Amino acid sequence: MTDLPLAGSGPPKPEDVPRWLDADALARPVRLDRLRARLAAAGVDAWFGTRREDIRYLTGFSLAEGEEKVAGVSGQTLVSDDEMVVLADSRYHAQAREEAPEARVEEAYGDLPERWPALLASLRPIGGSGAGVRRVAVDATSVSHGTWEQLQAAAPDVELVPAEDWLAALRAVKEPAEMERIAAACAVADQALQRLLPSVRAGVTERELALDLEWSLRTHGAEALAFDVTCLSGPRAALPHGSPSDRTVRSGEVVLFDFGAQVCGYRSDMTRTLFVGEPTARDLTLYRLVAEAQEAAFALLAATATAEEGGYEVLTTRMVDQAARSVIEQAGHGERFGHGLGHGIGLATHEAPAIGRRAPDRMLPAPTVFSVEPGIYLDGTTGVRIEDLVVFDPDARRCERLTGFPRDVTVVGA
Amino acid sequence: MTDLPLAGSGPPKPEDVPRWLDADALARPVRLDRLRARLAAAGVDAWFGTRREDIRYLTGFSLAEGEEKVAGVSGQTLVSDDEMVVLADSRYHAQAREEAPEARVEEAYGDLPERWPALLASLRPIGGSGAGVRRVAVDATSVSHGTWEQLQAAAPDVELVPAEDWLAALRAVKEPAEMERIAAACAVADQALQRLLPSVRAGVTERELALDLEWSLRTHGAEALAFDVTCLSGPRAALPHGSPSDRTVRSGEVVLFDFGAQVCGYRSDMTRTLFVGEPTARDLTLYRLVAEAQEAAFALLAATATAEEGGYEVLTTRMVDQAARSVIEQAGHGERFGHGLGHGIGLATHEAPAIGRRAPDRMLPAPTVFSVEPGIYLDGTTGVRIEDLVVFDPDARRCERLTGFPRDVTVVGA
Repeated sequence: MTDLPLAGSGPPKPEDVPRWLDADALARPVRLDRLRARLAAAGVDAWFGTRREDIRYLTGFSLAEGEEKVAGVSGQTLVSDDEMVVLADSRYHAQAREEAPEARVEEAYGDLPERWPALLASLRPIGGSGAGVRRVAVDATSVSHGTWEQLQAAAPDVELVPAEDWLAALRAVKEPAEMERIAAACAVADQALQRLLPSVRAGVTERELALDLEWSLRTHGAEALAFDVTCLSGPRAALPHGSPSDRTVRSGEVVLFDFGAQVCGYRSDMTRTLFVGEPTARDLTLYRLVAEAQEAAFALLAATATAEEGGYEVLTTRMVDQAARSVIEQAGHGERFGHGLGHGIGLATHEAPAIGRRAPDRMLPAPTVFSVEPGIYLDGTTGVRIEDLVVFDPDARRCERLTGFPRDVTVVGA
Repeated sequence: MTDLPLAGSGPPKPEDVPRWLDADALARPVRLDRLRARLAAAGVDAWFGTRREDIRYLTGFSLAEGEEKVAGVSGQTLVSDDEMVVLADSRYHAQAREEAPEARVEEAYGDLPERWPALLASLRPIGGSGAGVRRVAVDATSVSHGTWEQLQAAAPDVELVPAEDWLAALRAVKEPAEMERIAAACAVADQALQRLLPSVRAGVTERELALDLEWSLRTHGAEALAFDVTCLSGPRAALPHGSPSDRTVRSGEVVLFDFGAQVCGYRSDMTRTLFVGEPTARDLTLYRLVAEAQEAAFALLAATATAEEGGYEVLTTRMVDQAARSVIEQAGHGERFGHGLGHGIGLATHEAPAIGRRAPDRMLPAPTVFSVEPGIYLDGTTGVRIEDLVVFDPDARRCERLTGFPRDVTVVGA
């Protein structure tokens, strides 16, 4: 496992953002070509989707997390052979035109079904000539059943083909400028936790620590959080997704932070379990076990990425999960590691590849970025999780940890 | 339009939260009865839904905004005659059991289709006896088409009936403890803007102001934001949903703030357009016009709410929209008010009733809480919007503004 910095990594500098946006603009035609090749192979004439991350990836039009609910039709996108059409209501029209220069932005409101037949009739089918789309791949993971039925009724002669995860598969393979932004988001998060350390001590509440950490992220390089900061102390650390409470941190306990930054659209995700005052032998044993489990996954990834040509082609997601899980199972804590080992990350905090014993067993995409986050949770007692992001890039013989914060036992507030 | 404080309003006090959670626990059986009556009327045996707000309303299990994407199956809920079943994966199981004591919490992962037939077979149909559900109303606005198809395939003999907005209709009618929390969230927002005023002056950036306002909200009573703070200056105020930029505020311009707080799950939403330095005659004219339009809607609502018994039964959502819109149209700016007049608010920032010329024309629910937010946007030049929340409660002969911040012309940084 090499820990070399990515070119251009570190927290974002003012000149980085325009450079990254330029890289996106240059990459969009390539991304579209890949999607259109997939559409052609599936024998469909066009693609329709509504997921925030997919739309930003394809068109540049960016909605904030959760804004889809407010945005109504805004951001709904059709991709045909020659065009991308982005719908936007009056509130988002100007923004969409500015951010998605290659797209035809149509001003719409809640009237997608009404305009659906004319819209399809105006587009050239993938690989075809003339106008008129007859088969549309519809992203069935983000389009509601209600919308599907409305579109079906609006143009009964047009066949809707359920598409699942087509964009997710494209987005899982990362471009250099995407990896740079994830690395920059990791650096922002590393430094924010470093600044927080003097405040982590007995007597403060989880909520105070979470808010301090958030503020530190937001005022030092993060345009947004990747997700709400998790801060859990003592027995609450056994809640793998609990929210910070007014509970006061006590000496001799763990404090678990799970948090991430967003930089120019891209996200980081890290977890550290810190010790407040003298660690208990029980917590130390758990910590070393979790660290060992994480290291086992890293070792497998690094060995595979740097192996002789073709070596990585046998590595699947469940093998990575199992490398870490078996360490925890052999120590008798298998039942106390209930979640998967990790997840891809990029424009969304959780995206492909999913790495877990219950997720589909797939080849790892490459190059890709994902989390490695084993944990052990003793219900009502304590919990430990350690999470880092890694770049897996076997073509470049590279497997690199993007999270820089130390993984050693860290004692604070002593 | 009376401006009397709601009983229990003002920012939240420490003793309020347990009282509100107790009120929710007492209200849940009533909410369930209303849903089950609706299910019985529709001739279905059970209800299935996944929307964060609906699940909190019915069961108490609370996911944060955006957490649905991370939570997987966690929070998917089935309501039958005798039970509520909430699915939660290992990460959310403890939280769901604690927050949803009336529900049967089943530990699940990505295996809903596999367990779907047995789950349905275990439940008593609405109004029936014995076990075995044959017709399920599925919330088609939140359940993806992909999930729908999986459930259909998993139990082909069970009929799925698309349900739209059934929970939205229930949630639109507000209980006293819900209105109190919205009022408390309004008070938190009022005070945060008041504290920000000395910082609103030429030379600061939109982003700095937005971050200051957010911090002020989060450290003075808001457990979360209702949505990302909007701060737009000068010509950018013409973007009805733009994000704060690094643009510097200049003297002689407007600064528009659109923001809200969350208190014990419930939200506020307000907009104020402030004048930095000497206002231009153009901006003042627009402001007074928007204020007059808002007042026209308030006047109609107040007259209707306080009218003789039954008077409100003729009031529809489009009449409220039109009351404000006609003022702006008569001044020749109809085309520059592109969005609807307002929206209901509660556990979600945008919920029923939708009040606009393009939204369905419906009777107003009662008692209910919604926004009244006319605006005029001169593309590339300037924009003005004023937004307040109102309680509309004709049975109590009450129409009350919850937003306390003055609506007068406010000049800052002079």
